[in-house]
Amino acid sequence: MQTILEHRSIRKFKEQAIDQKILEQILQAGTRASTTGNMQVYSIVVTQGEALKEALWRAHFKQDMVKKAPVVITFCADFNRFNLWCKQRKADPGYDNFLSFFTAAIDALLVAQNVALAAESLNLGICYLGTTTYMAESIITILDLPKGVVPVTTLVLGYPDEKPGLTDRLPLNAVVHYEKYRDYLPEDIDSLYAEKESMELTKQLLKENDKETLAQIFTDNRYTKKDNVAFSQALLGVLKKQGFM
Amino acid sequence: MQTILEHRSIRKFKEQAIDQKILEQILQAGTRASTTGNMQVYSIVVTQGEALKEALWRAHFKQDMVKKAPVVITFCADFNRFNLWCKQRKADPGYDNFLSFFTAAIDALLVAQNVALAAESLNLGICYLGTTTYMAESIITILDLPKGVVPVTTLVLGYPDEKPGLTDRLPLNAVVHYEKYRDYLPEDIDSLYAEKESMELTKQLLKENDKETLAQIFTDNRYTKKDNVAFSQALLGVLKKQGFM
Repeated sequence: MQTILEHRSIRKFKEQAIDQKILEQILQAGTRASTTGNMQVYSIVVTQGEALKEALWRAHFKQDMVKKAPVVITFCADFNRFNLWCKQRKADPGYDNFLSFFTAAIDALLVAQNVALAAESLNLGICYLGTTTYMAESIITILDLPKGVVPVTTLVLGYPDEKPGLTDRLPLNAVVHYEKYRDYLPEDIDSLYAEKESMELTKQLLKENDKETLAQIFTDNRYTKKDNVAFSQALLGVLKKQGFM
Repeated sequence: MQTILEHRSIRKFKEQAIDQKILEQILQAGTRASTTGNMQVYSIVVTQGEALKEALWRAHFKQDMVKKAPVVITFCADFNRFNLWCKQRKADPGYDNFLSFFTAAIDALLVAQNVALAAESLNLGICYLGTTTYMAESIITILDLPKGVVPVTTLVLGYPDEKPGLTDRLPLNAVVHYEKYRDYLPEDIDSLYAEKESMELTKQLLKENDKETLAQIFTDNRYTKKDNVAFSQALLGVLKKQGFM
Protein backbone atom coordinates (compact mmCIF):
# COMPACT_ATOMS: atom_id res chain seq x y z
CA MET A 1 0.00 0.00 0.00
CA GLN A 2 2.83 2.38 0.88
CA THR A 3 4.38 1.71 -2.52
CA ILE A 4 1.11 2.53 -4.27
CA LEU A 5 0.61 5.76 -2.35
CA GLU A 6 4.14 6.99 -2.97
CA HIS A 7 4.19 6.47 -6.73
CA ARG A 8 5.60 9.31 -8.78
CA SER A 9 6.79 9.03 -12.37
CA ILE A 10 10.57 9.19 -12.66
CA ARG A 11 12.13 10.66 -15.79
CA LYS A 12 15.75 11.02 -14.67
CA PHE A 13 17.81 7.95 -13.89
CA LYS A 14 21.23 7.17 -12.47
CA GLU A 15 23.61 5.29 -14.73
CA GLN A 16 23.50 2.34 -12.33
CA ALA A 17 22.41 -0.85 -14.12
CA ILE A 18 19.66 -3.11 -12.81
CA ASP A 19 20.88 -6.47 -11.57
CA GLN A 20 19.51 -9.39 -13.61
CA LYS A 21 18.21 -11.08 -10.44
CA ILE A 22 16.24 -7.99 -9.48
CA LEU A 23 14.91 -7.68 -13.01
CA GLU A 24 13.71 -11.28 -12.96
CA GLN A 25 12.08 -10.78 -9.58
CA ILE A 26 10.14 -7.83 -10.99
CA LEU A 27 9.10 -9.70 -14.13
CA GLN A 28 8.03 -12.69 -12.07
CA ALA A 29 5.82 -10.34 -10.05
CA GLY A 30 4.30 -9.27 -13.38
CA THR A 31 3.26 -12.82 -14.17
CA ARG A 32 1.20 -13.08 -10.97
CA ALA A 33 -1.40 -10.58 -12.21
CA SER A 34 -4.86 -11.90 -13.05
CA THR A 35 -5.19 -13.00 -16.67
CA THR A 36 -8.34 -13.91 -18.63
CA GLY A 37 -9.00 -17.63 -18.24
CA ASN A 38 -5.31 -18.04 -17.34
CA MET A 39 -4.54 -17.78 -21.07
CA GLN A 40 -1.66 -15.37 -20.34
CA VAL A 41 -2.07 -13.68 -23.70
CA TYR A 42 0.64 -11.06 -23.32
CA SER A 43 4.38 -10.73 -23.81
CA ILE A 44 7.02 -8.58 -22.17
CA VAL A 45 9.95 -7.33 -24.25
CA VAL A 46 12.91 -6.16 -22.16
CA THR A 47 15.30 -3.94 -24.13
CA GLN A 48 18.68 -2.86 -22.78
CA GLY A 49 21.01 -2.66 -25.80
CA GLU A 50 22.01 0.85 -26.86
CA ALA A 51 21.13 0.56 -30.56
CA LEU A 52 17.65 -0.83 -29.93
CA LYS A 53 17.03 1.68 -27.14
CA GLU A 54 17.97 4.42 -29.57
CA ALA A 55 15.48 3.10 -32.13
CA LEU A 56 12.79 3.00 -29.46
CA TRP A 57 13.76 6.50 -28.36
CA ARG A 58 13.08 7.73 -31.89
CA ALA A 59 9.71 5.99 -31.93
CA HIS A 60 8.76 7.45 -28.54
CA PHE A 61 9.06 11.07 -29.74
CA LYS A 62 12.74 11.23 -28.66
CA GLN A 63 11.89 11.47 -24.99
CA ASP A 64 15.23 11.60 -23.19
CA MET A 65 14.34 9.05 -20.56
CA VAL A 66 14.02 6.26 -23.15
CA LYS A 67 17.71 6.51 -24.00
CA LYS A 68 18.86 7.19 -20.47
CA ALA A 69 16.91 4.56 -18.54
CA PRO A 70 18.92 1.33 -18.29
CA VAL A 71 15.86 -0.79 -19.12
CA VAL A 72 12.90 -0.23 -21.46
CA ILE A 73 10.03 -2.72 -21.15
CA THR A 74 7.37 -3.01 -23.85
CA PHE A 75 4.16 -4.77 -22.83
CA CYS A 76 2.28 -6.44 -25.67
CA ALA A 77 -1.13 -7.96 -26.20
CA ASP A 78 -0.04 -11.37 -27.57
CA PHE A 79 -2.24 -14.08 -29.05
CA ASN A 80 0.59 -15.36 -31.25
CA ARG A 81 1.96 -17.83 -28.67
CA PHE A 82 -1.51 -19.06 -27.75
CA ASN A 83 -2.49 -19.47 -31.42
CA LEU A 84 0.67 -21.47 -32.15
CA TRP A 85 -0.10 -23.72 -29.21
CA CYS A 86 -3.69 -24.25 -30.39
CA LYS A 87 -2.58 -25.12 -33.91
CA GLN A 88 0.01 -27.59 -32.57
CA ARG A 89 -2.71 -29.24 -30.46
CA LYS A 90 -5.40 -29.88 -33.09
CA ALA A 91 -7.42 -26.87 -31.92
CA ASP A 92 -8.73 -24.11 -34.18
CA PRO A 93 -8.09 -20.69 -32.57
CA GLY A 94 -10.79 -18.04 -33.06
CA TYR A 95 -8.85 -15.06 -31.74
CA ASP A 96 -8.45 -12.90 -34.86
CA ASN A 97 -10.96 -10.29 -33.71
CA PHE A 98 -11.28 -7.08 -31.72
CA LEU A 99 -12.54 -8.70 -28.50
CA SER A 100 -9.49 -10.93 -28.40
CA PHE A 101 -7.18 -7.96 -28.90
CA PHE A 102 -8.84 -6.13 -26.04
CA THR A 103 -8.73 -9.20 -23.79
CA ALA A 104 -5.02 -9.52 -24.45
CA ALA A 105 -4.50 -5.78 -23.89
CA ILE A 106 -6.14 -6.08 -20.46
CA ASP A 107 -3.77 -8.95 -19.59
CA ALA A 108 -0.77 -6.88 -20.68
CA LEU A 109 -1.83 -3.77 -18.76
CA LEU A 110 -2.45 -5.56 -15.46
CA VAL A 111 0.97 -7.20 -15.82
CA ALA A 112 2.51 -3.77 -16.50
CA GLN A 113 1.07 -2.28 -13.33
CA ASN A 114 2.35 -5.24 -11.29
CA VAL A 115 5.80 -4.74 -12.81
CA ALA A 116 5.67 -0.99 -12.06
CA LEU A 117 4.75 -1.55 -8.42
CA ALA A 118 7.20 -4.42 -7.91
CA ALA A 119 9.96 -2.21 -9.33
CA GLU A 120 9.02 0.69 -7.07
CA SER A 121 8.95 -1.59 -4.03
CA LEU A 122 12.61 -2.39 -4.83
CA ASN A 123 13.52 1.33 -4.95
CA LEU A 124 13.48 1.61 -8.72
CA GLY A 125 11.67 4.42 -10.52
CA ILE A 126 9.36 4.02 -13.50
CA CYS A 127 7.55 6.07 -16.11
CA TYR A 128 4.84 4.94 -18.52
CA LEU A 129 5.11 5.94 -22.18
CA GLY A 130 1.74 6.84 -23.68
CA THR A 131 3.47 7.14 -27.06
CA THR A 132 3.37 3.32 -27.35
CA THR A 133 -0.10 3.25 -28.92
CA TYR A 134 0.63 6.27 -31.13
CA MET A 135 3.73 4.66 -32.57
CA ALA A 136 2.72 0.99 -32.42
CA GLU A 137 3.66 0.41 -36.05
CA SER A 138 7.27 1.57 -35.62
CA ILE A 139 7.63 -0.39 -32.38
CA ILE A 140 6.37 -3.54 -34.13
CA THR A 141 9.13 -3.13 -36.70
CA ILE A 142 11.86 -2.36 -34.16
CA LEU A 143 11.01 -5.28 -31.87
CA ASP A 144 10.12 -7.81 -34.62
CA LEU A 145 6.60 -8.33 -33.27
CA PRO A 146 4.81 -10.96 -35.37
CA LYS A 147 1.13 -11.07 -36.34
CA GLY A 148 -1.03 -11.49 -33.25
CA VAL A 149 1.17 -9.14 -31.18
CA VAL A 150 0.48 -5.44 -30.51
CA PRO A 151 2.43 -3.19 -28.08
CA VAL A 152 0.05 -1.47 -25.64
CA THR A 153 2.29 0.28 -23.14
CA THR A 154 5.94 0.78 -22.21
CA LEU A 155 7.78 1.35 -18.94
CA VAL A 156 11.19 2.89 -18.58
CA LEU A 157 12.97 1.64 -15.49
CA GLY A 158 16.01 2.61 -13.47
CA TYR A 159 17.34 4.01 -10.21
CA PRO A 160 15.84 7.49 -9.69
CA ASP A 161 18.04 10.53 -10.04
CA GLU A 162 15.28 12.94 -8.98
CA LYS A 163 12.60 13.04 -6.33
CA PRO A 164 9.58 14.90 -7.66
CA GLY A 165 6.58 15.62 -5.45
CA LEU A 166 3.37 13.64 -5.72
CA THR A 167 1.30 14.64 -8.75
CA ASP A 168 -1.96 16.44 -8.01
CA ARG A 169 -5.19 14.47 -8.39
CA LEU A 170 -8.84 15.44 -8.65
CA PRO A 171 -10.75 14.87 -5.39
CA LEU A 172 -11.90 11.27 -4.86
CA ASN A 173 -15.55 12.15 -5.47
CA ALA A 174 -14.63 13.38 -8.96
CA VAL A 175 -13.82 9.84 -10.11
CA VAL A 176 -15.92 7.64 -7.80
CA HIS A 177 -19.66 7.11 -8.24
CA TYR A 178 -21.71 5.17 -5.71
CA GLU A 179 -24.27 2.68 -7.00
CA LYS A 180 -24.72 4.22 -10.48
CA TYR A 181 -23.03 6.91 -12.53
CA ARG A 182 -24.22 10.36 -11.56
CA ASP A 183 -23.58 12.73 -14.43
CA TYR A 184 -21.86 16.03 -13.66
CA LEU A 185 -23.69 19.34 -13.42
CA PRO A 186 -21.86 22.50 -14.51
CA GLU A 187 -21.35 23.44 -10.84
CA ASP A 188 -19.87 19.97 -10.13
CA ILE A 189 -17.27 20.49 -12.84
CA ASP A 190 -16.42 23.92 -11.43
CA SER A 191 -15.94 22.60 -7.93
CA LEU A 192 -14.12 19.36 -8.86
CA TYR A 193 -11.56 21.20 -11.00
CA ALA A 194 -11.25 24.26 -8.73
CA GLU A 195 -8.21 23.08 -6.79
CA LYS A 196 -6.35 22.00 -9.93
CA GLU A 197 -7.13 25.27 -11.67
CA SER A 198 -5.92 27.39 -8.78
CA MET A 199 -2.54 25.66 -8.49
CA GLU A 200 0.61 27.71 -8.97
CA LEU A 201 1.71 25.21 -11.65
CA THR A 202 -1.47 25.90 -13.64
CA LYS A 203 -0.94 29.66 -13.54
CA GLN A 204 2.60 29.17 -14.76
CA LEU A 205 1.42 26.90 -17.62
CA LEU A 206 -1.19 29.46 -18.71
CA LYS A 207 1.46 32.14 -18.90
CA GLU A 208 3.99 29.92 -20.75
CA ASN A 209 1.38 28.73 -23.26
CA ASP A 210 -0.40 32.05 -23.54
CA LYS A 211 -3.81 30.43 -22.97
CA GLU A 212 -6.91 31.52 -21.12
CA THR A 213 -7.77 28.12 -19.59
CA LEU A 214 -5.91 24.97 -18.62
CA ALA A 215 -8.34 22.89 -20.69
CA GLN A 216 -7.17 24.77 -23.81
CA ILE A 217 -3.61 23.62 -23.17
CA PHE A 218 -4.88 20.04 -23.44
CA THR A 219 -7.12 20.52 -26.48
CA ASP A 220 -4.90 22.95 -28.44
CA ASN A 221 -1.37 21.85 -27.49
CA ARG A 222 -1.00 18.51 -25.75
CA TYR A 223 -3.72 16.19 -27.06
CA THR A 224 -5.15 17.76 -30.20
CA LYS A 225 -8.01 16.43 -32.29
CA LYS A 226 -5.75 16.33 -35.34
CA ASP A 227 -3.19 14.09 -33.62
CA ASN A 228 -5.85 11.92 -32.00
CA VAL A 229 -7.57 11.28 -35.31
CA ALA A 230 -4.29 10.48 -37.09
CA PHE A 231 -3.12 8.15 -34.27
CA SER A 232 -6.54 6.48 -34.15
CA GLN A 233 -6.31 5.61 -37.83
CA ALA A 234 -2.76 4.36 -37.38
CA LEU A 235 -3.72 2.20 -34.38
CA LEU A 236 -6.77 0.71 -36.11
CA GLY A 237 -4.51 0.00 -39.09
CA VAL A 238 -2.09 -1.81 -36.78
CA LEU A 239 -4.91 -3.92 -35.31
CA LYS A 240 -5.93 -4.92 -38.81
CA LYS A 241 -2.37 -5.67 -39.91
CA GLN A 242 -1.67 -7.72 -36.78
CA GLY A 243 -4.78 -9.79 -37.43
CA PHE A 244 -7.28 -8.45 -34.90
CA MET A 245 -10.00 -6.90 -37.07
CA MET B 1 5.74 -7.32 -3.33
CA GLN B 2 4.40 -10.00 -0.98
CA THR B 3 0.86 -8.93 -1.85
CA ILE B 4 1.60 -9.25 -5.57
CA LEU B 5 3.15 -12.69 -5.24
CA GLU B 6 0.31 -14.07 -3.12
CA HIS B 7 -2.53 -12.99 -5.39
CA ARG B 8 -5.21 -15.59 -6.05
CA SER B 9 -8.67 -14.85 -7.39
CA ILE B 10 -11.36 -15.21 -4.72
CA ARG B 11 -14.84 -16.31 -5.74
CA LYS B 12 -16.37 -17.08 -2.33
CA PHE B 13 -16.90 -14.32 0.18
CA LYS B 14 -17.98 -14.01 3.80
CA GLU B 15 -21.12 -11.97 4.46
CA GLN B 16 -19.00 -9.41 6.33
CA ALA B 17 -19.44 -5.92 4.84
CA ILE B 18 -16.50 -3.70 3.94
CA ASP B 19 -16.12 -0.66 6.15
CA GLN B 20 -16.57 2.63 4.26
CA LYS B 21 -13.20 3.90 5.55
CA ILE B 22 -11.43 0.85 4.18
CA LEU B 23 -13.26 1.17 0.88
CA GLU B 24 -12.18 4.79 0.54
CA GLN B 25 -8.60 3.91 1.38
CA ILE B 26 -8.63 1.34 -1.43
CA LEU B 27 -10.21 3.73 -3.93
CA GLN B 28 -7.73 6.45 -2.99
CA ALA B 29 -4.94 3.98 -3.74
CA GLY B 30 -6.56 3.53 -7.16
CA THR B 31 -6.24 7.23 -7.92
CA ARG B 32 -2.46 7.13 -7.42
CA ALA B 33 -1.90 5.04 -10.55
CA SER B 34 -0.19 6.72 -13.51
CA THR B 35 -2.65 8.37 -15.89
CA THR B 36 -2.03 9.78 -19.38
CA GLY B 37 -1.05 13.44 -19.09
CA ASN B 38 -2.72 13.45 -15.65
CA MET B 39 -6.06 13.71 -17.47
CA GLN B 40 -7.55 11.01 -15.17
CA VAL B 41 -9.96 9.88 -17.87
CA TYR B 42 -11.60 7.05 -15.97
CA SER B 43 -14.42 6.54 -13.50
CA ILE B 44 -15.03 3.97 -10.78
CA VAL B 45 -18.60 2.85 -10.06
CA VAL B 46 -19.00 1.18 -6.66
CA THR B 47 -22.20 -0.88 -6.42
CA GLN B 48 -23.43 -2.39 -3.16
CA GLY B 49 -27.26 -2.30 -3.34
CA GLU B 50 -28.95 -5.67 -3.77
CA ALA B 51 -31.17 -4.76 -6.74
CA LEU B 52 -28.33 -3.24 -8.78
CA LYS B 53 -25.99 -6.10 -7.86
CA GLU B 54 -28.64 -8.50 -9.10
CA ALA B 55 -28.88 -6.64 -12.40
CA LEU B 56 -25.09 -6.74 -12.75
CA TRP B 57 -25.13 -10.44 -11.84
CA ARG B 58 -27.47 -11.08 -14.79
CA ALA B 59 -25.20 -9.10 -17.11
CA HIS B 60 -22.11 -10.99 -15.90
CA PHE B 61 -23.46 -14.41 -16.97
CA LYS B 62 -25.04 -14.99 -13.53
CA GLN B 63 -21.72 -15.71 -11.88
CA ASP B 64 -22.53 -16.35 -8.21
CA MET B 65 -19.77 -14.16 -6.85
CA VAL B 66 -21.34 -11.00 -8.31
CA LYS B 67 -24.39 -11.37 -6.09
CA LYS B 68 -22.51 -12.66 -3.06
CA ALA B 69 -19.61 -10.21 -2.94
CA PRO B 70 -20.49 -7.20 -0.77
CA VAL B 71 -19.00 -4.78 -3.30
CA VAL B 72 -18.88 -4.77 -7.11
CA ILE B 73 -16.62 -2.16 -8.72
CA THR B 74 -16.93 -1.29 -12.41
CA PHE B 75 -13.95 0.53 -13.94
CA CYS B 76 -14.76 2.73 -16.91
CA ALA B 77 -12.86 4.55 -19.60
CA ASP B 78 -14.37 8.03 -19.14
CA PHE B 79 -13.87 11.10 -21.34
CA ASN B 80 -17.29 12.49 -20.38
CA ARG B 81 -16.05 14.44 -17.35
CA PHE B 82 -13.01 15.76 -19.21
CA ASN B 83 -15.13 16.78 -22.21
CA LEU B 84 -17.59 18.64 -19.97
CA TRP B 85 -14.70 20.47 -18.35
CA CYS B 86 -13.25 21.43 -21.75
CA LYS B 87 -16.58 22.74 -23.00
CA GLN B 88 -17.06 24.79 -19.82
CA ARG B 89 -13.58 26.28 -20.31
CA LYS B 90 -13.80 27.50 -23.91
CA ALA B 91 -11.81 24.51 -25.15
CA ASP B 92 -12.86 22.22 -28.00
CA PRO B 93 -12.29 18.56 -26.99
CA GLY B 94 -11.10 16.21 -29.76
CA TYR B 95 -11.57 12.94 -27.91
CA ASP B 96 -14.34 11.24 -29.89
CA ASN B 97 -12.03 8.67 -31.47
CA PHE B 98 -10.52 5.22 -30.94
CA LEU B 99 -7.17 6.43 -29.62
CA SER B 100 -8.90 8.41 -26.89
CA PHE B 101 -10.98 5.38 -25.91
CA PHE B 102 -7.87 3.26 -25.64
CA THR B 103 -6.01 5.95 -23.66
CA ALA B 104 -8.90 6.10 -21.20
CA ALA B 105 -9.06 2.30 -21.02
CA ILE B 106 -5.38 2.19 -20.04
CA ASP B 107 -6.05 4.72 -17.27
CA ALA B 108 -8.98 2.64 -15.99
CA LEU B 109 -7.05 -0.65 -16.05
CA LEU B 110 -4.01 0.67 -14.16
CA VAL B 111 -6.38 2.08 -11.54
CA ALA B 112 -8.14 -1.29 -11.32
CA GLN B 113 -4.91 -3.14 -10.62
CA ASN B 114 -3.99 -0.62 -7.92
CA VAL B 115 -7.41 -1.12 -6.34
CA ALA B 116 -7.02 -4.92 -6.53
CA LEU B 117 -3.62 -4.86 -4.84
CA ALA B 118 -4.62 -2.28 -2.23
CA ALA B 119 -7.65 -4.44 -1.35
CA GLU B 120 -5.51 -7.56 -1.07
CA SER B 121 -3.01 -5.77 1.14
CA LEU B 122 -5.93 -5.12 3.53
CA ASN B 123 -6.88 -8.82 3.59
CA LEU B 124 -9.72 -8.54 1.12
CA GLY B 125 -10.11 -10.91 -1.81
CA ILE B 126 -10.85 -9.91 -5.40
CA CYS B 127 -11.81 -11.42 -8.73
CA TYR B 128 -11.79 -9.73 -12.14
CA LEU B 129 -14.82 -10.20 -14.40
CA GLY B 130 -13.84 -10.63 -18.06
CA THR B 131 -17.53 -10.53 -18.92
CA THR B 132 -17.42 -6.72 -18.62
CA THR B 133 -16.37 -6.18 -22.22
CA TYR B 134 -18.73 -8.87 -23.54
CA MET B 135 -21.71 -7.28 -21.85
CA ALA B 136 -20.70 -3.61 -21.96
CA GLU B 137 -24.00 -2.57 -23.48
CA SER B 138 -26.10 -4.02 -20.62
CA ILE B 139 -23.74 -2.60 -18.02
CA ILE B 140 -24.03 0.85 -19.59
CA THR B 141 -27.81 0.65 -19.19
CA ILE B 142 -27.69 -0.70 -15.63
CA LEU B 143 -25.20 1.90 -14.38
CA ASP B 144 -26.54 4.87 -16.43
CA LEU B 145 -23.21 5.43 -18.16
CA PRO B 146 -23.44 8.47 -20.45
CA LYS B 147 -21.79 8.99 -23.84
CA GLY B 148 -18.01 9.08 -23.46
CA VAL B 149 -18.03 6.31 -20.83
CA VAL B 150 -17.33 2.59 -21.48
CA PRO B 151 -16.92 -0.12 -18.81
CA VAL B 152 -13.65 -2.02 -19.32
CA THR B 153 -13.32 -4.28 -16.30
CA THR B 154 -15.02 -5.16 -13.03
CA LEU B 155 -13.77 -6.34 -9.65
CA VAL B 156 -15.82 -8.17 -7.05
CA LEU B 157 -14.53 -7.51 -3.57
CA GLY B 158 -15.04 -8.99 -0.11
CA TYR B 159 -13.52 -10.95 2.75
CA PRO B 160 -12.41 -14.36 1.41
CA ASP B 161 -14.30 -17.47 2.41
CA GLU B 162 -11.89 -19.79 0.62
CA LYS B 163 -8.14 -20.12 0.25
CA PRO B 164 -7.33 -21.54 -3.17
CA GLY B 165 -3.74 -22.38 -4.16
CA LEU B 166 -1.75 -20.15 -6.46
CA THR B 167 -2.77 -20.53 -10.10
CA ASP B 168 -0.21 -22.19 -12.38
CA ARG B 169 1.72 -19.97 -14.77
CA LEU B 170 3.82 -20.62 -17.85
CA PRO B 171 7.57 -20.42 -17.15
CA LEU B 172 8.96 -16.88 -17.14
CA ASN B 173 10.81 -17.40 -20.44
CA ALA B 174 7.47 -18.14 -22.15
CA VAL B 175 6.32 -14.54 -21.71
CA VAL B 176 9.60 -12.58 -21.51
CA HIS B 177 11.72 -11.73 -24.54
CA TYR B 178 15.10 -10.05 -24.20
CA GLU B 179 15.95 -7.22 -26.60
CA LYS B 180 13.50 -8.18 -29.38
CA TYR B 181 10.66 -10.65 -29.82
CA ARG B 182 11.93 -14.13 -30.60
CA ASP B 183 9.17 -16.06 -32.30
CA TYR B 184 8.40 -19.54 -30.99
CA LEU B 185 9.54 -22.72 -32.74
CA PRO B 186 7.32 -25.80 -32.51
CA GLU B 187 9.69 -27.31 -29.94
CA ASP B 188 9.53 -24.09 -27.85
CA ILE B 189 5.75 -24.38 -27.68
CA ASP B 190 6.02 -28.03 -26.64
CA SER B 191 8.47 -27.31 -23.87
CA LEU B 192 6.82 -24.10 -22.58
CA TYR B 193 3.40 -25.76 -22.28
CA ALA B 194 4.71 -29.15 -21.06
CA GLU B 195 4.30 -28.49 -17.36
CA LYS B 196 0.79 -27.09 -17.76
CA GLU B 197 -0.27 -29.99 -19.95
CA SER B 198 0.99 -32.59 -17.53
CA MET B 199 -0.87 -31.18 -14.52
CA GLU B 200 -3.41 -33.36 -12.73
CA LEU B 201 -5.98 -30.56 -13.23
CA THR B 202 -5.47 -30.71 -17.00
CA LYS B 203 -6.00 -34.48 -17.10
CA GLN B 204 -9.19 -34.06 -15.11
CA LEU B 205 -10.45 -31.31 -17.48
CA LEU B 206 -9.75 -33.47 -20.55
CA LYS B 207 -11.82 -36.28 -19.06
CA GLU B 208 -14.70 -34.00 -17.98
CA ASN B 209 -14.82 -32.25 -21.36
CA ASP B 210 -14.12 -35.37 -23.40
CA LYS B 211 -11.36 -33.60 -25.37
CA GLU B 212 -8.02 -34.74 -26.72
CA THR B 213 -6.06 -31.56 -25.90
CA LEU B 214 -6.31 -28.73 -23.39
CA ALA B 215 -6.18 -26.19 -26.23
CA GLN B 216 -9.42 -27.66 -27.60
CA ILE B 217 -11.16 -26.89 -24.31
CA PHE B 218 -10.29 -23.23 -24.91
CA THR B 219 -11.18 -23.08 -28.61
CA ASP B 220 -14.28 -25.33 -28.53
CA ASN B 221 -15.77 -24.64 -25.09
CA ARG B 222 -14.45 -21.63 -23.21
CA TYR B 223 -13.51 -18.96 -25.75
CA THR B 224 -15.09 -19.92 -29.06
CA LYS B 225 -14.73 -18.11 -32.36
CA LYS B 226 -18.51 -17.70 -32.55
CA ASP B 227 -18.69 -15.93 -29.18
CA ASN B 228 -15.60 -13.84 -29.84
CA VAL B 229 -16.95 -12.60 -33.16
CA ALA B 230 -20.35 -11.76 -31.67
CA PHE B 231 -18.83 -9.97 -28.66
CA SER B 232 -16.39 -8.10 -30.92
CA GLN B 233 -19.27 -6.71 -32.95
CA ALA B 234 -21.13 -5.79 -29.77
CA LEU B 235 -18.09 -4.05 -28.28
CA LEU B 236 -17.33 -2.11 -31.46
CA GLY B 237 -21.00 -1.11 -31.52
CA VAL B 238 -20.69 0.15 -27.95
CA LEU B 239 -17.60 2.21 -28.84
CA LYS B 240 -19.52 3.79 -31.69
CA LYS B 241 -22.62 4.44 -29.57
CA GLN B 242 -20.54 5.95 -26.74
CA GLY B 243 -18.88 8.30 -29.21
CA PHE B 244 -15.44 6.77 -29.70
CA MET B 245 -15.45 5.74 -33.38
